Amino acid sequence: MNKLFLIIFIMGIFNIKSAQTLPEEKITEYINTADKIVREALSNKVGYELLRELVQFGPRLSGSENMEKAIYWAEEKMKSLGYDSVWLQPVMVPYWVRGEKEEAVILNSKHEGKKLSILALGGSVGTDENGISGEVIEVQNFDELREIGNKAKGKIIFFNRPFDESLINTFQAYGAAVNQRSVGAIEAAKVGAIGAIVRSVTSKYDNIPHTGMMRYVDSLPQIPAVAIGLIDADFLSNAIKEEPTLKVNIKLSCETLPDILSYNVIGDLIGSELPNEIVIVSGHFDSWDVGDGSHDDGGPCMQAMEIPNLYKRLNIKPKRTIRCILFINEENGVRGGIEYGIYADTTKEIHVAAIESDRGVFTPRGFSVDADEFRIKQMQNWLPILNRSNIEWVRKGGSGVDISRIKVAKALIGYVPDDQRYFDFHHSANDVFEEVNPREMQLGTAAMAILTLLLSEEGLE
Amino acid sequence: MNKLFLIIFIMGIFNIKSAQTLPEEKITEYINTADKIVREALSNKVGYELLRELVQFGPRLSGSENMEKAIYWAEEKMKSLGYDSVWLQPVMVPYWVRGEKEEAVILNSKHEGKKLSILALGGSVGTDENGISGEVIEVQNFDELREIGNKAKGKIIFFNRPFDESLINTFQAYGAAVNQRSVGAIEAAKVGAIGAIVRSVTSKYDNIPHTGMMRYVDSLPQIPAVAIGLIDADFLSNAIKEEPTLKVNIKLSCETLPDILSYNVIGDLIGSELPNEIVIVSGHFDSWDVGDGSHDDGGPCMQAMEIPNLYKRLNIKPKRTIRCILFINEENGVRGGIEYGIYADTTKEIHVAAIESDRGVFTPRGFSVDADEFRIKQMQNWLPILNRSNIEWVRKGGSGVDISRIKVAKALIGYVPDDQRYFDFHHSANDVFEEVNPREMQLGTAAMAILTLLLSEEGLE
Repeated sequence: MNKLFLIIFIMGIFNIKSAQTLPEEKITEYINTADKIVREALSNKVGYELLRELVQFGPRLSGSENMEKAIYWAEEKMKSLGYDSVWLQPVMVPYWVRGEKEEAVILNSKHEGKKLSILALGGSVGTDENGISGEVIEVQNFDELREIGNKAKGKIIFFNRPFDESLINTFQAYGAAVNQRSVGAIEAAKVGAIGAIVRSVTSKYDNIPHTGMMRYVDSLPQIPAVAIGLIDADFLSNAIKEEPTLKVNIKLSCETLPDILSYNVIGDLIGSELPNEIVIVSGHFDSWDVGDGSHDDGGPCMQAMEIPNLYKRLNIKPKRTIRCILFINEENGVRGGIEYGIYADTTKEIHVAAIESDRGVFTPRGFSVDADEFRIKQMQNWLPILNRSNIEWVRKGGSGVDISRIKVAKALIGYVPDDQRYFDFHHSANDVFEEVNPREMQLGTAAMAILTLLLSEEGLE
Repeated sequence: MNKLFLIIFIMGIFNIKSAQTLPEEKITEYINTADKIVREALSNKVGYELLRELVQFGPRLSGSENMEKAIYWAEEKMKSLGYDSVWLQPVMVPYWVRGEKEEAVILNSKHEGKKLSILALGGSVGTDENGISGEVIEVQNFDELREIGNKAKGKIIFFNRPFDESLINTFQAYGAAVNQRSVGAIEAAKVGAIGAIVRSVTSKYDNIPHTGMMRYVDSLPQIPAVAIGLIDADFLSNAIKEEPTLKVNIKLSCETLPDILSYNVIGDLIGSELPNEIVIVSGHFDSWDVGDGSHDDGGPCMQAMEIPNLYKRLNIKPKRTIRCILFINEENGVRGGIEYGIYADTTKEIHVAAIESDRGVFTPRGFSVDADEFRIKQMQNWLPILNRSNIEWVRKGGSGVDISRIKVAKALIGYVPDDQRYFDFHHSANDVFEEVNPREMQLGTAAMAILTLLLSEEGLE
């Protein structure tokens, strides 16, 4: 007697609820298609070549000229890739500029004049032309800062809590360190400090600073805040132990200009049977203003952008509409995600599911799904198919910052590539095209193309 | 009624054979230990720092002075890492040297004098000081060559079949192209050719040639053979289409010297309860003579070398003896593996299992096990523990070239990291320390340390 049959029989007796499973021959058919997708994605590396073109515009901070050029390039590119319709969805975005002047110099020390490797945090206020000067107080966390209290007045707070290398999940390590960057300036202002220096949140030991979003609150003074490279962070930590009266002068000419018009780039491959039902593949098109934003998030955008074209090359005609969205402004405002979320709430289109790729273009691992258990189980039943692109798991979890605003969708899905190298590059001059492995990127494209196709053909219960 | 209980009950009725499963509390205990191993491996990157020291010796071809220095360094290092006993197992190894002269120049062409980026294959004969000169005939495979037959006489055969990028498994793509390199000179000699140029077997499009082992047979003339970088391979392919009378002159001063004494480096952490039972962790210590052999196979050796020390740092005292072996001469002779295999056949020690790491130091994926199904099932039952280091699977398959000689072991296990980048580096000047990601390497160390510990504590049925 067959074991599997027996288990199914038992499940029948006890009426154990099971998500839809595909018939064997259907699975075989999908596996054949998945293998074709993998072969095509690896052979003709269209997304990788698109990325090579994209990075020519330079980094793509929201509101910048680079970003604008890239948006119009993407619009034209989608058309030439065979999309059925392409539109630009207008979005007003914050417009922060770094400006020319950016330096931190050591004063009142035997290291007098030494420049530190720093980068203003995104959204920081600038300084006047003399900059700010102050002694430096190092803390590991906000509790320590609150204990120091008034002694911090007039000083520069140096948040030096390291990225916890011992954690296997680098996003967890990032999450455990990043509040120094996001709200450090608020906490420092509470105790009367005049500036903040933040240890870069990175897994790579070098001297390249990693920027990122920071916030202010209206009730407190806005003080300038910068990220510092790890080598200089360790140098500064030692230097102030030796010479507590050492000062740092910081000059920044960054500023926030009035909001400016930008766009989400949206392109559809119209569904052959259910054109009104949508499956989204997406990334965010903006990046920080250093490096060329290849991993965060240019590469992922080009993965999404290739997918409709990949189907065309293979003569696959999805039942549902495949919509590629390149969201604007994930990094410092999420305005693109918010705007599309409003659209999704009001349109008559049915949003079946959305996938976002925003964890770099590394080798595939899994999909993290924000949906009810039953639908997750349905997707887990597809694992023998997804596995053809080296996807090993489908788990409940967060999806992507932008798509999380599409509340009407049945499932929001984050593509999860291997995360060990991501924070070596993230938000820094290290994030460049040369650090993208074409095979790893294209395999991710294949993984998402397979899942997107399954979502289109099978729908979600 | 409990589902699991029911299934176990049914299995009882039908007497379905099942591998040993661990009790729940035992699994929890191992998971705790596994998490400690992961944290320690990622926090204190001992293996990665060992690799930084090792690469100072330069590449480590069998018989070379670099290799000899590295062997004595490793012997001392194992002692200082707290191994209980360390010995050098003598092995006579082939001794091939590249020599000073190595060039390929275009003649009789508008490209007269252009040098091609080449590298003699390991084991190739040299040329006299005038070198060999001949027209070039390009073929994709041996069938094509046999069809050309006599027309190949006096010519240089250019084997230009590419690495098949469309395959998801890069080892499969390597396997499908590598016979051009390993036996191309034999096939070329059969049709009277005077030399062979082989397209580098690599996934990276650049102009760095990738060397590797090639063979001769006694019954045929030994003709020189070189690898060529991909950019120059494509150049040469186009050039001879345009000018079929173009010639290439190849000068090589490589030669094979008499066999020379070398060693396997072997170190034991003596088992606390079953010292006579051995679990091996290993890599091969030799490399090709370009780059610094960080991925192939210096990094993997340092992973193996860290493991006993990692247990010491965590105060883990394995029941069985953990033996680290750095095999000599995997690349061009496997003499170290053969020698140890003879030892294993005759010693009274019991070889429980052996793990080899020889696929680069990338992020963990799985273990490929050469053992009977029952023992593989036993290891698969450990997946919830192994998964703590991101190991996703244990499958039947090949193990490692060196350990495959240990026929007495119950299981031979290949550590399988992600393979997408491996052949970018393999056997070339691209294989350097800078291309090793410390987290990916250390996570692999953790993966092997966890499996090694399970093998030691649980044994194999």
